[in-house]
Amino acid sequence: MTAYDTNNIFAKILRGEIPCFKVYENDHVLAFLDIMPRAPGHTLVIPKAPARNLLDITEADFVHVARATRLIARVAMPLFKADGIMIVQFSEPASGQEVYHLHMHVIPRFAGVALLPPATVKADMAALKEQATLLAAALKDG
Amino acid sequence: MTAYDTNNIFAKILRGEIPCFKVYENDHVLAFLDIMPRAPGHTLVIPKAPARNLLDITEADFVHVARATRLIARVAMPLFKADGIMIVQFSEPASGQEVYHLHMHVIPRFAGVALLPPATVKADMAALKEQATLLAAALKDG
Repeated sequence: MTAYDTNNIFAKILRGEIPCFKVYENDHVLAFLDIMPRAPGHTLVIPKAPARNLLDITEADFVHVARATRLIARVAMPLFKADGIMIVQFSEPASGQEVYHLHMHVIPRFAGVALLPPATVKADMAALKEQATLLAAALKDG
Repeated sequence: MTAYDTNNIFAKILRGEIPCFKVYENDHVLAFLDIMPRAPGHTLVIPKAPARNLLDITEADFVHVARATRLIARVAMPLFKADGIMIVQFSEPASGQEVYHLHMHVIPRFAGVALLPPATVKADMAALKEQATLLAAALKDG
């Protein structure tokens, strides 16, 4: 498998070289809003450790991602008044992976509303900022 | 949220009332082939504990599912000569959930080959049996 590329965009976010709409952080993971969301509240959970995808991440790091994913899903569901939630993770280009740092998508779903296509429409920055603030606050309380 | 339904099909599989093409089992999870696979090797990982989806599963049980998911993905990728792999989990009908016992889909992906639509084409039983035997053996060794 291709080696980890330290210049991928999520590595830059982890190093603070690029900003993000942070919703959650602990010693092992960072979670932030996808700026081209497939639905309102679409969040990405990434390990702080370098890992290209599910094929090279350590078990311990993936467990940290899984724990945060569950936590965020449960808080996002009522916060965004969603009717359902999906989580999805892609490994390698054939699966749809586009950024080569493991990321779990947490996507609120709304009855009768189709997902937007991936990585197409940039959301309104003010709306993202407000959503991130609300989600971060709910996760702090939860 | 709706209560757990003990008569869902995966609960019946767990109780041994319905057969499955088992690929992996430990004290906490069971994994078996989807009989209407979206791609060859499509596997479902379920907790043995009753959990409707990500919104009611305990953290400990979800961690067990995550560990097995990672393990199966890494073994399935070379075994099925896949080019990528995706994992996905749906909670509640609005997200696409159809069986109400938490299940993580582990789906091998092949370059240039679209996924089959969900739950449409029943696979050849002999082919599923052979795939399950190979995957179970590889997981035992791995």
